[in-house]
Amino acid sequence: MTTEDEDKALRYRRAQSVTRAEEISEQEKKVRRSQLDKPIHKPRDSLFSWSSEFTNFTGLVNWGFLMLTIGGVRLGLENFLKYGFRVNPIEWIIVLTGYHEGDKYQYPSLALIMFAVVPPVIALLIEKAIAVDLIPQKIGMSIQIANILFVVSLPAIVLHFKGDDFSFVGITTVCMLYLVIFLKLWSYTQTNYWCRCGTKRKLSKNTLRRQSLSAPTWKSFEDEKNEAAVAVGLVKYPDNLNLKDLFYFLLAPTLCYELNFPRTARIRKRFLVKRLLEVVFGLNLVLALFQQWMIPSVTNSIDTFSTMDPIRITERLLKLAVPNHLIWLCFFYLSFHSFLNLMGELLQFADRNFYNDWWNANNISVFWSTWNMPVHMWAVRHVYIPITKRGHSKVVASIVVFFISAFFHEYLVSVPLQMFRIWAFLGMMAQPPLSVISRMAEIKLGPRWGNLIVWSSLILGQPLAIMMYYHDYALLHFTPAKL
Amino acid sequence: MTTEDEDKALRYRRAQSVTRAEEISEQEKKVRRSQLDKPIHKPRDSLFSWSSEFTNFTGLVNWGFLMLTIGGVRLGLENFLKYGFRVNPIEWIIVLTGYHEGDKYQYPSLALIMFAVVPPVIALLIEKAIAVDLIPQKIGMSIQIANILFVVSLPAIVLHFKGDDFSFVGITTVCMLYLVIFLKLWSYTQTNYWCRCGTKRKLSKNTLRRQSLSAPTWKSFEDEKNEAAVAVGLVKYPDNLNLKDLFYFLLAPTLCYELNFPRTARIRKRFLVKRLLEVVFGLNLVLALFQQWMIPSVTNSIDTFSTMDPIRITERLLKLAVPNHLIWLCFFYLSFHSFLNLMGELLQFADRNFYNDWWNANNISVFWSTWNMPVHMWAVRHVYIPITKRGHSKVVASIVVFFISAFFHEYLVSVPLQMFRIWAFLGMMAQPPLSVISRMAEIKLGPRWGNLIVWSSLILGQPLAIMMYYHDYALLHFTPAKL
Repeated sequence: MTTEDEDKALRYRRAQSVTRAEEISEQEKKVRRSQLDKPIHKPRDSLFSWSSEFTNFTGLVNWGFLMLTIGGVRLGLENFLKYGFRVNPIEWIIVLTGYHEGDKYQYPSLALIMFAVVPPVIALLIEKAIAVDLIPQKIGMSIQIANILFVVSLPAIVLHFKGDDFSFVGITTVCMLYLVIFLKLWSYTQTNYWCRCGTKRKLSKNTLRRQSLSAPTWKSFEDEKNEAAVAVGLVKYPDNLNLKDLFYFLLAPTLCYELNFPRTARIRKRFLVKRLLEVVFGLNLVLALFQQWMIPSVTNSIDTFSTMDPIRITERLLKLAVPNHLIWLCFFYLSFHSFLNLMGELLQFADRNFYNDWWNANNISVFWSTWNMPVHMWAVRHVYIPITKRGHSKVVASIVVFFISAFFHEYLVSVPLQMFRIWAFLGMMAQPPLSVISRMAEIKLGPRWGNLIVWSSLILGQPLAIMMYYHDYALLHFTPAKL
Repeated sequence: MTTEDEDKALRYRRAQSVTRAEEISEQEKKVRRSQLDKPIHKPRDSLFSWSSEFTNFTGLVNWGFLMLTIGGVRLGLENFLKYGFRVNPIEWIIVLTGYHEGDKYQYPSLALIMFAVVPPVIALLIEKAIAVDLIPQKIGMSIQIANILFVVSLPAIVLHFKGDDFSFVGITTVCMLYLVIFLKLWSYTQTNYWCRCGTKRKLSKNTLRRQSLSAPTWKSFEDEKNEAAVAVGLVKYPDNLNLKDLFYFLLAPTLCYELNFPRTARIRKRFLVKRLLEVVFGLNLVLALFQQWMIPSVTNSIDTFSTMDPIRITERLLKLAVPNHLIWLCFFYLSFHSFLNLMGELLQFADRNFYNDWWNANNISVFWSTWNMPVHMWAVRHVYIPITKRGHSKVVASIVVFFISAFFHEYLVSVPLQMFRIWAFLGMMAQPPLSVISRMAEIKLGPRWGNLIVWSSLILGQPLAIMMYYHDYALLHFTPAKL
């Protein structure tokens, strides 16, 4: 609106008001006030009237906060009255480790977790072998790729033969760990490959220069850079190929390998203790919420989902959405703030950019590129940029990144459930159209609506996918009598 | 905090950050960036870390809004699945009018509502008689007081003898109407009394002046004022004592009588239609919420309240609090904005100050003096100021206002329920200590906490009182089998 329009609107608003100050003169007001009947009425609009120009509704923010709290406390009490106290820490240890009494081979998940150090060590050995020209680069890289693919397929293979020995949580943890190692080794191999290519290029350039130039000037720009790097204490390839460096990278809260990570000057003890307490208490909170609220809700919903009654399904879905979303929020804070910062502090790792302000995201694309920064940075550095540098368009690169992401979402769900449905994959496939819708809402209706769509898809999409999987899982594993 | 303190805090915060920009020189950064391993990590804090100084959480407001909406939709669906569709407009007409099939005298509430015009007409006749000196002022005032007291006691008397003919909603409407007429007639009588006293005082003053001054100067200041009043068209006592003026006051959206109400220039038709639609649809919404949500919740809670189990009672209370509060909010908007503005627009009544911004109230006293402006203005003009003018302290005046308010709250509940419990009275009695607590919270913890206490007492206090009454009502009226 131009200033003139605003002025017009203001004048119209004033004219619509009951006040109309110009009608009553000061003289008249004075006479009116001096009457014997002690008059107290004067022309004024109600505050909700558009013409009153009143806009202070700050108290309503407190109202919203209070209504949420009251609703939360009531849901908690209702849950407690209905299901009793279900939190049982011992059960979690059994669930996590897959321990069955009477079994000989008692901790299959733990065994797989411990085996996870083997592939990285193999990767280091191959890198070393390529660096000292023990094996040619091409053959070495093929072995590396085979090693990395072995990492990601191992959980699926083991589960296929020994599925009954694993608990659901145990195998999920294993899948998560092997996926992280897969991504880290991919980065490790590719980064070392970049260094090798760069060193070779430099060498050949320098040789050329040395041949063409006279003796005093052959000390090239590259060499100067090299010396500067040594002066500030930077490690150069292949000095990085050792166990200490590899294990630092495996433990560091990042998926992208580089030779010289930025480091902090010291470990802040207060910060460390706070994060540690958050992890310990937060983990218990999440497990308690899960046992007390999530499991009964999901179990109760399974009948409803079989009836296919849309009203009942919606009600169940909304009921499930609240605990699921709260658990996800706790999980997000615990993993991405508490746990990764704890690891970062312990390792004096200075880059703590584990998440961006996804809660303000005005469209789905922004959300996906801000909520999980380690994966986002990995995808940009190791998939998106290499593809665009090979001359492919940005669209092609985006599609590849997107499909890799969709595959790993499906991997993290299907392998532990031993059930190859495509719900998670479809969920990821729904992201591009949703992204377009949210982008349009952001442009046409304003950023607030874009943000609301992001939150809605987050709050409602997850329980929908969970119910799909649980429904199919229950149909496969439970007898009809049990249902 | 002083500027120095802030500066210190900022420096401490910077020192606690992982960034510590001063440690890494520009030169070092440049060297680091030029490495072959394409480094992407740089020192930065996580956004949730206190040292990151990040404060943009606007998306969380949308989150809160969405969680409230989802919770509301789910509660609505759950209610529908549990109780089916219960809204029945015909039932309301029966409930409102107290119509019983087979009764001869079919509309007792309607008869009492129509009778409500009689006492005001009597009051007018008495005023007229006093004004023309037909009866002495003292006797006239006694009859007026008797007439006003008759108004407030009539519903209670009729109900005592013919209680079974009335429905609960019908008698509540009657009580509300008679209470309003009681307050209006009190104001009418007292204002006319002020005018009479003022006129007499003026007359005697003028007589004195006329005797003491010479002829040309006897035209006093008072006369000038009088002429000015006539010039701007103001009505003077006793010209106001007519039926038209009386009925305008009875219909006008105010409890305070004055001879010359401020008037608007015209009836805004758009405004009128909007308010009318709000009243029609809003009333149906409130009735629907009441039938569908409130009645089943209250009925379901009655067993729980008899068991005296504190956890179950709390859960029921919180469950009841949500629909009760939403209905109260709808009721507030409908009565104080839609209905009173509708009456005001129809009567061209210019003072629309029916409520103030009570939603921002930071303590209970502010809430009570802002949520219901007609009653607040009446209490200040007709009780508080007259008492302080007689030389009593402000504390005494406040206590009297408070007790009158408490009495009428009890009146509006006990008479319709035909059950003289003191829960409403006790609820009012809880206001002064609550007021002190909220005032202390406002001072010690800040205005936000004061506002939270005001909202809490509003959201939780009402359902508590409702359950108390309904519990006692059910014990009296229903057989144990029905319970």
